[in-house]
Amino acid sequence: MPEPAAARPPAIVLVEPQMPENIGMAARAMANFGLSEMRLVAPREGWPHPGAAAPAAGAGHVLDGARAFATTAEALGDLHFVLATTARSRGQMKRILGPEAAFAEIARRAAAGERTAILFGRERTGLGNDDVSLADAILTFPVDPAHPSLNLAAAVMVAGYEWTRALGRGLPFAPHPGTPPATREAVLSLFEYLEAELDGAGFYPPDKRPVMVRNMRDMLHRMELTEQDVRTWRGVIRALAEGRRKG
Amino acid sequence: MPEPAAARPPAIVLVEPQMPENIGMAARAMANFGLSEMRLVAPREGWPHPGAAAPAAGAGHVLDGARAFATTAEALGDLHFVLATTARSRGQMKRILGPEAAFAEIARRAAAGERTAILFGRERTGLGNDDVSLADAILTFPVDPAHPSLNLAAAVMVAGYEWTRALGRGLPFAPHPGTPPATREAVLSLFEYLEAELDGAGFYPPDKRPVMVRNMRDMLHRMELTEQDVRTWRGVIRALAEGRRKG
Repeated sequence: MPEPAAARPPAIVLVEPQMPENIGMAARAMANFGLSEMRLVAPREGWPHPGAAAPAAGAGHVLDGARAFATTAEALGDLHFVLATTARSRGQMKRILGPEAAFAEIARRAAAGERTAILFGRERTGLGNDDVSLADAILTFPVDPAHPSLNLAAAVMVAGYEWTRALGRGLPFAPHPGTPPATREAVLSLFEYLEAELDGAGFYPPDKRPVMVRNMRDMLHRMELTEQDVRTWRGVIRALAEGRRKG
Repeated sequence: MPEPAAARPPAIVLVEPQMPENIGMAARAMANFGLSEMRLVAPREGWPHPGAAAPAAGAGHVLDGARAFATTAEALGDLHFVLATTARSRGQMKRILGPEAAFAEIARRAAAGERTAILFGRERTGLGNDDVSLADAILTFPVDPAHPSLNLAAAVMVAGYEWTRALGRGLPFAPHPGTPPATREAVLSLFEYLEAELDGAGFYPPDKRPVMVRNMRDMLHRMELTEQDVRTWRGVIRALAEGRRKG
């Protein structure tokens, strides 16, 4: 039985990746979404490889921890639940999951202490049927059937993104605090100031004034003014009105 | 007023992309998820550029249709709703949307006939504040704050993926039809055949038989057997039992 633990992110297993650059870009995509365990099965150019470093950008820790294996079966030996990514039906009698369902299940299993992984195939041809056969279920992306071939790092990115969604992780930054929102009193005072200046300028045809006032107040409300915004608009109106009076 | 139309996918606007390879990879990611309208603002190496073709893989139609503009404002001139992607707070008083909320709004606006777009910045530094200022709201991804820097094509990929999710598009292939699921009668008949053979082999301690039978039936049920599976298992059991009787 796996021991209980905080949800451990899925390992990303790249089977026979051809280009070290793609390994590096995949590592970068992993780090973007909190994935850190990379496993490589028979990478064509050997491992470690210096060509992976620059494309990994700030994800050197992912590359440093990556382990290489001779076969897919060896790479999966200690895992409990494995999904194979594929863009086409393999005629295998496995469950086929979209990203949302797949990562809901991975998150649930990881929270229960299972060690999980996602298998990605080589760049040109994807996973072989024998590799798919090692998985519990298939993960596929809702791609346009006319253009199903995914860039390796981009596919890893979507997987990491769904892992983050499954965890319910929030956005990396919040709206700018800025100044507090204006009170309704401040907003109404601004409206009245504007309307008084427009009255003074003869802006409103008398029969249209009520509807024009309402429409303009609607527009101004849509700006969700802050205290600072109200001060700014007061200054703008004053500048325009005094410019006219001076003119 | 925009004319009513089927939901038009958002345009992808790349501002000052540095590497033609990244333009090609972004085009590939767009095609994966049914996006086709690419706009380029002042691409560093000029446009068109032959270096974009190979990384675009099968997405040559996206590159062929891509239009280049001198400024971001010109690139956005005919659009109604624009989101700017950024990985860090800009201190601008704009709404900040995650991908799910962003594409729900884009899909709703597109269905109402609005023309929408997502702005992506240059590879190293992202969008400038003046570019962000041209957008209605900010789109940001729920990245690990320690590793927020996204590969351009991978970010486009997540955007396309969320567009597809917002449309509710299905997976590109269904489970293999295979043979129909086995009837309950066929499954029970298989169980009884197996249990009779195991009885004959003296497999069950008599006091444990009921619980062992139930446990094994549970396991076998989890396979969700098809008609063909039942035939296969009958053959397997027969081969094992007859091998034993011959031995």
